[in-house]
Amino acid sequence: MTLPALTLILGGARSGKSRHAEALVTAEAGPWRYVATGQAFDAEMEERIALHRERRGQGWSTVEAPIELPQVLRELGRESPGPILVDCLTLWVTNLLLGEHDIPAAAAHLERALEANRAPVVLVSNEVGLGIVPENKLARRFRDEAGRLHQRLASRADRVLFVVAGVPMVVKEAGPQP
Amino acid sequence: MTLPALTLILGGARSGKSRHAEALVTAEAGPWRYVATGQAFDAEMEERIALHRERRGQGWSTVEAPIELPQVLRELGRESPGPILVDCLTLWVTNLLLGEHDIPAAAAHLERALEANRAPVVLVSNEVGLGIVPENKLARRFRDEAGRLHQRLASRADRVLFVVAGVPMVVKEAGPQP
Amino acid sequence: MTLPALTLILGGARSGKSRHAEALVTAEAGPWRYVATGQAFDAEMEERIALHRERRGQGWSTVEAPIELPQVLRELGRESPGPILVDCLTLWVTNLLLGEHDIPAAAAHLERALEANRAPVVLVSNEVGLGIVPENKLARRFRDEAGRLHQRLASRADRVLFVVAGVPMVVKEAGPQP
Repeated sequence: MTLPALTLILGGARSGKSRHAEALVTAEAGPWRYVATGQAFDAEMEERIALHRERRGQGWSTVEAPIELPQVLRELGRESPGPILVDCLTLWVTNLLLGEHDIPAAAAHLERALEANRAPVVLVSNEVGLGIVPENKLARRFRDEAGRLHQRLASRADRVLFVVAGVPMVVKEAGPQP
Repeated sequence: MTLPALTLILGGARSGKSRHAEALVTAEAGPWRYVATGQAFDAEMEERIALHRERRGQGWSTVEAPIELPQVLRELGRESPGPILVDCLTLWVTNLLLGEHDIPAAAAHLERALEANRAPVVLVSNEVGLGIVPENKLARRFRDEAGRLHQRLASRADRVLFVVAGVPMVVKEAGPQP
Repeated sequence: MTLPALTLILGGARSGKSRHAEALVTAEAGPWRYVATGQAFDAEMEERIALHRERRGQGWSTVEAPIELPQVLRELGRESPGPILVDCLTLWVTNLLLGEHDIPAAAAHLERALEANRAPVVLVSNEVGLGIVPENKLARRFRDEAGRLHQRLASRADRVLFVVAGVPMVVKEAGPQP
């Protein structure tokens, strides 16, 4: 399967979604661009980021975009036609929420940046809405914002995958079947 | 796809399951009947109910059934053959649990009401069992009751969908494939 | 469908995954062997174990393996070619975690025991990574360990199922399609 313009990869924690996304990207001709939305607030997070970077290995360039994801995508789209991996949207939503940004406006910017982009983009995000309603109000709001963003992006995506135990299930496949 | 006698739509919070259910119902000839199980205990919930009502728009009649869902379904089934949307079962289970009703008995009533019904019914419910075991005992009991109800209804349903990011995955499709 | 060498059944709480696993096993010639990883720490758990045992009924032999799962599988594999059901991996991971065992080492032992086994094995486990990030650090670690184990076992399994409301969705089916 060749990468379409937009792929959305959803899955739970430790479901293997990042690894699957990386495999999709490295099956294409480079350069491979990695957009990291994570910020290391603590040692646990620092370790996670370092492990991801180590696993990806050679051949990737990395840009950090904890907030300015739409702008970064626009710039990368102009630079080269190599595939872009964004990992992950849920951390971007977290950063927007904690920084009190306007999330619907940011989502609209992201959609326009994706539309303008000519390089194939793979978006990775955590599905977080399949547990008990959280008692914490901020967690409920986060869950709502993430879910709404997933719906918007899935409706625009050519391919949507739901990764279970490292294995992708096809949720949506637009156009002629591969 | 024409609506079969019973459709069960599961999905996470903000997965687009209500929107998908509404689209299935409004693709059929009316009248469209909406059975709301939600009760506005607080401002957050009131806002959510108002948003849902606004999105549905014209052409729907709404009945509230926070507890008496089986009875309401029986009455609506007698009135007209127009499709019925129940949104959502998890709120109904919550209301039963908080009101200390006999949930297995209520589930059996619901099943008999569905059996007697001649109008196509679409049931919407939240999948809540895919996170960490909740520390709160009531939440664990809720999760168990909701899961058991889903199993009973899925075994009786003609079609079961699992909605991810607004896109339905077919879990079960009875009879001749569409 | 005949049982392949290794089947992994994932699903949420009360999703019907144990019931489906039991049906797969009892469709084969016996003896049917049940490996229970659960330990009754409290009355709630005791009741759950008793209910499961009652449902399985006659024709099963049961072995408890809260920690020594790899060793038990090796022994059962030598005894007879009858199918083996392990219910469930998440409780095994919990026991390892609380006992401060080396989980990656235990997972490697489990993989070697599965490789050596000639009886068909069905592994049942809870998917727990699809909710909000837990606030509790031990819960986060548990979620990570369970997710990693699922990935390892899924890559080795011939068939991976994700059970929703009692209905299995096929995540992976190796070899010639049934």
